[in-house]
Amino acid sequence: MRFFDKHYLLENEAAKILYFDYAKDMPIFDYHCHLDPKEIYENKNFENITEAWLSGDHYKWRLMRAAGFDEKYITGTAQAFEKFEAFAKTLKYAIGSPIYHWAHSELKFFFGIDEPLTEKNAKEIYEKANEKLKAFQARDFIEKANVKAIITTDDPLDTLEWHAKIKEDKTFNTKVLPAFRPDNIINIENPNFKTYIQKLGCAHIEELKNKIEEKINYFAAHGCVASDHGLEYIPFEEAAAEEVSTILDRALAGQKLSKLEIDKYKTYILQFLASKYKEKGWAMELHYGTLRNINKPMLSKIGENTGYDTIGDDNSARNFKFLFNSLEEKNSLPKTLLFSINPNDIYMLGVLMGGFNKKDSEMQLGPPWWFNDHRNGIEKQINALADVGLLGKHIGMLTDSRSFLSYTRHDYHRRILCSIIGKWLEAGEYESIETAGELIRDIVYNNAIKYFGIN
Amino acid sequence: MRFFDKHYLLENEAAKILYFDYAKDMPIFDYHCHLDPKEIYENKNFENITEAWLSGDHYKWRLMRAAGFDEKYITGTAQAFEKFEAFAKTLKYAIGSPIYHWAHSELKFFFGIDEPLTEKNAKEIYEKANEKLKAFQARDFIEKANVKAIITTDDPLDTLEWHAKIKEDKTFNTKVLPAFRPDNIINIENPNFKTYIQKLGCAHIEELKNKIEEKINYFAAHGCVASDHGLEYIPFEEAAAEEVSTILDRALAGQKLSKLEIDKYKTYILQFLASKYKEKGWAMELHYGTLRNINKPMLSKIGENTGYDTIGDDNSARNFKFLFNSLEEKNSLPKTLLFSINPNDIYMLGVLMGGFNKKDSEMQLGPPWWFNDHRNGIEKQINALADVGLLGKHIGMLTDSRSFLSYTRHDYHRRILCSIIGKWLEAGEYESIETAGELIRDIVYNNAIKYFGIN
Amino acid sequence: MRFFDKHYLLENEAAKILYFDYAKDMPIFDYHCHLDPKEIYENKNFENITEAWLSGDHYKWRLMRAAGFDEKYITGTAQAFEKFEAFAKTLKYAIGSPIYHWAHSELKFFFGIDEPLTEKNAKEIYEKANEKLKAFQARDFIEKANVKAIITTDDPLDTLEWHAKIKEDKTFNTKVLPAFRPDNIINIENPNFKTYIQKLGCAHIEELKNKIEEKINYFAAHGCVASDHGLEYIPFEEAAAEEVSTILDRALAGQKLSKLEIDKYKTYILQFLASKYKEKGWAMELHYGTLRNINKPMLSKIGENTGYDTIGDDNSARNFKFLFNSLEEKNSLPKTLLFSINPNDIYMLGVLMGGFNKKDSEMQLGPPWWFNDHRNGIEKQINALADVGLLGKHIGMLTDSRSFLSYTRHDYHRRILCSIIGKWLEAGEYESIETAGELIRDIVYNNAIKYFGIN
Repeated sequence: MRFFDKHYLLENEAAKILYFDYAKDMPIFDYHCHLDPKEIYENKNFENITEAWLSGDHYKWRLMRAAGFDEKYITGTAQAFEKFEAFAKTLKYAIGSPIYHWAHSELKFFFGIDEPLTEKNAKEIYEKANEKLKAFQARDFIEKANVKAIITTDDPLDTLEWHAKIKEDKTFNTKVLPAFRPDNIINIENPNFKTYIQKLGCAHIEELKNKIEEKINYFAAHGCVASDHGLEYIPFEEAAAEEVSTILDRALAGQKLSKLEIDKYKTYILQFLASKYKEKGWAMELHYGTLRNINKPMLSKIGENTGYDTIGDDNSARNFKFLFNSLEEKNSLPKTLLFSINPNDIYMLGVLMGGFNKKDSEMQLGPPWWFNDHRNGIEKQINALADVGLLGKHIGMLTDSRSFLSYTRHDYHRRILCSIIGKWLEAGEYESIETAGELIRDIVYNNAIKYFGIN
Repeated sequence: MRFFDKHYLLENEAAKILYFDYAKDMPIFDYHCHLDPKEIYENKNFENITEAWLSGDHYKWRLMRAAGFDEKYITGTAQAFEKFEAFAKTLKYAIGSPIYHWAHSELKFFFGIDEPLTEKNAKEIYEKANEKLKAFQARDFIEKANVKAIITTDDPLDTLEWHAKIKEDKTFNTKVLPAFRPDNIINIENPNFKTYIQKLGCAHIEELKNKIEEKINYFAAHGCVASDHGLEYIPFEEAAAEEVSTILDRALAGQKLSKLEIDKYKTYILQFLASKYKEKGWAMELHYGTLRNINKPMLSKIGENTGYDTIGDDNSARNFKFLFNSLEEKNSLPKTLLFSINPNDIYMLGVLMGGFNKKDSEMQLGPPWWFNDHRNGIEKQINALADVGLLGKHIGMLTDSRSFLSYTRHDYHRRILCSIIGKWLEAGEYESIETAGELIRDIVYNNAIKYFGIN
Repeated sequence: MRFFDKHYLLENEAAKILYFDYAKDMPIFDYHCHLDPKEIYENKNFENITEAWLSGDHYKWRLMRAAGFDEKYITGTAQAFEKFEAFAKTLKYAIGSPIYHWAHSELKFFFGIDEPLTEKNAKEIYEKANEKLKAFQARDFIEKANVKAIITTDDPLDTLEWHAKIKEDKTFNTKVLPAFRPDNIINIENPNFKTYIQKLGCAHIEELKNKIEEKINYFAAHGCVASDHGLEYIPFEEAAAEEVSTILDRALAGQKLSKLEIDKYKTYILQFLASKYKEKGWAMELHYGTLRNINKPMLSKIGENTGYDTIGDDNSARNFKFLFNSLEEKNSLPKTLLFSINPNDIYMLGVLMGGFNKKDSEMQLGPPWWFNDHRNGIEKQINALADVGLLGKHIGMLTDSRSFLSYTRHDYHRRILCSIIGKWLEAGEYESIETAGELIRDIVYNNAIKYFGIN
């Protein structure tokens, strides 16, 4: 087959029908990403493909480090083309990597570049892409990818001014909604916790709870339909409100907390937040298990989110059981999406969800997250959903990206989904290709729209 | 391929030969299930397919909940056809699910229904199946599926009267044997533990041990050859007999035990039970890792075994090592089958067993259990056995079911097994198709008959 | 396909090209094994294939036990042919097993035996192999397999005299280098720890550190470029030098240490060793997670390394993070190879490494270890490297073997690698077969040569 042919990833004839007749032209709802709404509003222009493609993309940086490039060519002071060339040289070794796949999907879809990017043609492709970028801005990527709605990830202190401005701008039709991510409220062990809570203007637990509610209302007024959490592990230690109040006081007084105290606070706040999400009808997204900033020397040099986070392996099943049950007992479990960084958790989570499902798959296994969003991870997740969940009700893919070029990951997911379902169809394991095609349309777009209540 | 064609799941030509010439017509020995021997003896008649198929099947209930149906249509007061229709509607979304596969295998094998069950033909199929059920009772399912022997799961307090009556009934040739499942003796932390031990008539540890022995002898006299255990986790804390005696006294006096005390009691009783199984030549089945009743509100509403159990992720390797070694040191390790609810454990268990194997694969990896009994789970287990065990000595599939219709799961397993081995044959990786065919006959029936000593 | 045809494991046309044109004729660098350098120097002659093939091979023993053979025929007093015959009978059941694959690869490559070994032809093959063995000694296996370099595994107390003699022997061109394996220095909880430290001539921590340095220098002078560690789990408890000194004193005084003390000592010594490896430019190999000697009665009877070790399931991610960061903060993290006995760890490790990579993939995921070195394990590891690492920089396979016949495992790995990459090529997912072929040559030989600095 030709390099990145139109039948790329479509491994059987049924897959081709499913993809071209059902999946390909569906719009995109990217319900979790890290785009900057300011850049969307201002319709950011990129000086060159290095800025658009390599700056901020720690996936690519990790590969370049493994390929032996000095940090100068990765996050350092090298010229834009030098960095691009270093990445082009890296790709040679990245055979089978999702970064190899995504890079070429993006070059093809957005830049019309059909050939493999190599050391030899790096200059030529660099110039071709830069030429294209002159007339291609942030919103052009979004529109070309047929993105109907985007959910960003936002701190409770965020003013959401850019979301508001985008909404008012009648020249741009894609919805851009905020998501409420209160990690800074939950992570009581963080050195900057005290400062953050002071910025919120709270001195006691009741003030904090009131402020949380106020912020949730503010986000809701700006169209928010989802919260998001990054938890290193799933805590569960219940404590009386008075005890938690004392723990918070101690933290704000700069005292050191025990692990048990930390977990009591986190459990209490998580339960409170969840109950508010439930009231609002929001979805609660739990991303958990990542060990962050594992390399302190590099953290000092270049900061967070630079490729130094890793997969944790804590046991979570019991605390999930206790946490969800504690919420369900008070009827305050919101619809929930679970994302584990550790691929080993997928069947555990898939079954867990089934124990709290009400109304139309409100409990969802989030799509393969971060180090899992390669073909094998996507295949494993689709299979797990079929094995222990209800695949036809899944809400599909998201990019989780900081880049405007990542939308082809939806196409990647669609092709893999069509291949798997196509194989089942050809083996006589499902009623008809038409119904399968409908399901695929639901999975890649309609289900998520309905789940989040977008219209 | 046609919907559920005769070549369903047979992915290569060798697989077809292996299946049709060797596997297909082998009888079934269903060595672990949850059928009610009373229903077998009385040759239960089913009012309709909803009763035969949906009542009691929490696999299906979980899917229906995920599909958004109200509990009324699942375990509630809806009419039989309404429930059947809800399930038919659910199937549309269950693409790739083992429940989709099993449902259609059962409709085809027992009812001669060849088409996919959908919302549209639900009424027609409902009526066709009900018509068939008029002349088709519990024993008919067993006999049509060519089941030579069944092992049920029974509490030590069970009188085994129905097993005795079945044995005396010369009109029915399938053996129906009990298995000894003393969970109620082991789970000292259960609220009803005290009541249970009182029912057994025991006030002290020595009385309890005597009673256990008496019950084991009673079960043995009724043809029992296997025990069964459901353990939330693998305990291992050794303690002197006197200490365990005190722990039991405290429990019977209604005092609260520590986790350490609970584990000491459990370890002691498990070791005692194992030594008795060893004396009797029984197999010890250990099902472990399930977190049960995770949703308390639903437990209050509809009780246990209704779809609210999930996969745990406790670490088990060390305690297994200690437990099995402690038994082996006293030559009291019985032949053992290990079933983990967590698919991550499969290689750990496969290798562990090899460290205690004596006499002809006495240590067995039980077939994929519960949330693992889908195609991927079966494939993974067969591969794991080949990779780190001795596949040709495996004792094959079981249903673990509460339904008389589940026997086609044996066929499901046989087809997958033939496909995997067929692939190896076609790749020139084994001596001959004839020897492979022999092995398959052993795996799907003969090995289990020999292992449990059935004749 | 014919039994073990030349296209064995090559599943597509591109795979055949990659294998025959690029992989097949590359030399072997077996960078981790357990061969005895004395046997290499003395060019050991084998009395029969039982001695060459079955004595010392606990992989085969485990299968024979599972097949039901009495220990007499495995490690006991049975005649050489009786043991060989027992193994031949076992193979029938070992369908799909890597031992089945390796056994036939070895028979074919070294003995020219093309047919499946079965009970029927056991005598004939036994005699044919023995005939061949008359003129085939240890070095012949090495040379026939085109092995350019070997790294053995050696205790710090080893004199390395045989390595020295091999080096001086101009009739033998394969490099045979030692690796420094200080398990006896680290495992302070071992009953023989005190004796071992006394043999080293150390009474205090400073003496021990000096002695370690002396031994490392001695190994380096004998061409050593790698260390090796077998860790039951990854410890991490930092403590001041004085505290560790006291812990060592207590151990040498025969006092019992707590788990915390043990971990403090181990962490301290590991950090010290790592810093020295870093100074020397050595690679640090960490093999971890194995629970050893799980069956004490068999340990008493036949000793260690006889097939009674198993896969542990401790959580490791946090301690890895802390350990590597503590080293990186002092710039004393050497290039490192990680080997987990538990297949569940592979993605966790693959990502972890990326967080400490400097200079050209210095952090490596070791090839599938022990119970993972079957086709599925190799496929999984190659995929994991592609998914979350940089496959083109991997340093390929090793035998980890005690046998001179195991070199065909490199061929096994090469064929699987070619099949996977061939599949990607045929699906249009990589730039060209020529570049892929180059990468394969790097992975199967060149990268390891460069990594360890062999010339």
